[in-house]
Amino acid sequence: MNLLKETISKITKPDEKAREEARKKWDGLLKPIGSLGVLEEITMKISAMTGKVINHFDKKAIVVMCSDNGAVEEGISAAPQIFTKILAESMPKGLTGVATLGKFTNTDIITVNLGIKGHIDNPEVIDKKIADGTKNFTKGPAMTYEEAIKAIETGIEVADQLYAKGYDILGTGEVGIGNTSTAAAVVSGLLGLEVDTICGKGAGLTEEQFIHKKEMIKKAISINKPNKDDPLDVISKVGGFDIAGMSGLCLSAAKNKKPIVIDGFISSAAALCASYLNPYVKEYIIPSHLSAEPGARYVLDVLGLKPLLTLEMRLGEGSGCPLAFQILEAAEYVLENMGTFDDVSMSSSSLIDIREK
Amino acid sequence: MNLLKETISKITKPDEKAREEARKKWDGLLKPIGSLGVLEEITMKISAMTGKVINHFDKKAIVVMCSDNGAVEEGISAAPQIFTKILAESMPKGLTGVATLGKFTNTDIITVNLGIKGHIDNPEVIDKKIADGTKNFTKGPAMTYEEAIKAIETGIEVADQLYAKGYDILGTGEVGIGNTSTAAAVVSGLLGLEVDTICGKGAGLTEEQFIHKKEMIKKAISINKPNKDDPLDVISKVGGFDIAGMSGLCLSAAKNKKPIVIDGFISSAAALCASYLNPYVKEYIIPSHLSAEPGARYVLDVLGLKPLLTLEMRLGEGSGCPLAFQILEAAEYVLENMGTFDDVSMSSSSLIDIREK
Repeated sequence: MNLLKETISKITKPDEKAREEARKKWDGLLKPIGSLGVLEEITMKISAMTGKVINHFDKKAIVVMCSDNGAVEEGISAAPQIFTKILAESMPKGLTGVATLGKFTNTDIITVNLGIKGHIDNPEVIDKKIADGTKNFTKGPAMTYEEAIKAIETGIEVADQLYAKGYDILGTGEVGIGNTSTAAAVVSGLLGLEVDTICGKGAGLTEEQFIHKKEMIKKAISINKPNKDDPLDVISKVGGFDIAGMSGLCLSAAKNKKPIVIDGFISSAAALCASYLNPYVKEYIIPSHLSAEPGARYVLDVLGLKPLLTLEMRLGEGSGCPLAFQILEAAEYVLENMGTFDDVSMSSSSLIDIREK
Repeated sequence: MNLLKETISKITKPDEKAREEARKKWDGLLKPIGSLGVLEEITMKISAMTGKVINHFDKKAIVVMCSDNGAVEEGISAAPQIFTKILAESMPKGLTGVATLGKFTNTDIITVNLGIKGHIDNPEVIDKKIADGTKNFTKGPAMTYEEAIKAIETGIEVADQLYAKGYDILGTGEVGIGNTSTAAAVVSGLLGLEVDTICGKGAGLTEEQFIHKKEMIKKAISINKPNKDDPLDVISKVGGFDIAGMSGLCLSAAKNKKPIVIDGFISSAAALCASYLNPYVKEYIIPSHLSAEPGARYVLDVLGLKPLLTLEMRLGEGSGCPLAFQILEAAEYVLENMGTFDDVSMSSSSLIDIREK
């Protein structure tokens, strides 16, 4: 609990002076004020995180939190549970979607075992196993309060170490069959929204299975009665180790004043928990894309975050993060290298018309 | 007229067999069917264009059509007309937004002078000048019918030559102060939509100037009475050389069975004209982003095109294209390199549940 408490207490608000300096730099470039839209906004947000006008992302990683969910025995997922293990073991081999996109964008994939069912003997999957999956949340809490804290602190630790090793930016990823259900339960628990409003079909369910999935999530909430004013209570009762671990990643990013890119719906549930633990956390979060899961939009709206991409992706794993990294790197490159009004040998004053409107 | 007629007649429908082969390849990858959303769709669309399942974009270019608009003398733009010339000359120097993004993404910028006012003596700006800007469309047609054809054919020629040189993909760009007005006039003329519905503030106008801009566009339409059934009539009366030239780029892409990425609102007006000349053209067009100009959405809807990015950009120049190239290259890389179900040593039949839903 010490690491979590300490981390939450060390998170401070972003640096508004650096944000303004970045804005000034943008406004001196050879273009109408604000005309690069979100490219400008997002670099300014990063400047406010790091305190630097220009930011390079030479070392990038996506941390993939892997864990199983006991509720899968209720038939809430189209994929068999063994897929958590298969996908986690496929990460270091570069076979998965996020690993392939990671390779393309020069991003390291850090695979963490937080609670995969069964035995994994692979030094490239970091062993931080808390339990052999969570318990079935339709019958009681998914994990203990202490386990939730342990999973969050593991996320903090992993990210702290990566930032210490010189990583400039991280992304959140996950593998865990059934985790669109746990994410929906957590979001419903925290925001007080109906399960029917936020729950989607995940990787692909029939209509009948989808109705059953929503019933199971409602059952989990009614049996466990998560306390919406305590994110730790919500995560422990109806969440998963992966969501908790990713919350830890977000908390570490905010503490270390570094950007963290989140992926889709499950990542956004983790970001929501972390932001409820300290409201400044959202200032360090960049949402990569709008997940096809209906709940994603609500979470991002509550956090005041706009996704960079809308590509109807629903793979998870952190697969939106490498695509967002590309955009961020392009935006920083423009901020650093684009020509200025001075470069075209015109005095600023003669161009005041175009620049001030 | 021969080149235009010939080009239109040579455009054929996309290759549905190649699209299906690409879909099959996606469906064999280690993920739920369809879960990479638009990344999958867009590569399948490109497969249908080229007839190849996997496509590489080793040689990329954005063609920036530069020209002036006579109607600028009516005060329809926040930027002075001289900016067309300044920006065109800044392209080869790498100072502009699109040139900077082009450099970052290894994309060549081809700058074409279709009708910039004044003299440009720079071999890096390809001289295809038709006139010293268009005429003021509030007083009569912007150009003759023949000039419109010449501008379109110039676009076809330039793109034909680039594809012949081995370019795999092109993007459309433009520089032309006042061209959000000509684009709005063209779109209004072709779609029969109200100017108030589709016209935006461009690079930045006061509310008063914005009202005036819309009045001038309405005047242009009421004086010239463009025939909505003849895109050449619409372009010549209320368009610009840049829009005509970009239409030519789109026509050439479709004829050469190569993808072309369009930028924002002005590009989309050109894509609309080209697609009205041959309805298959839109099958070869990939929209990079949703422009902040309100009309952009209507044009893309009519063409049935979904933008890859929504970044509230309104710079023009083709600046959305390099960002789209990044996404396309990432998508093709995944299609080519991601692991398959076979790679994880499981028989396809045992996974039928996850893959078929």
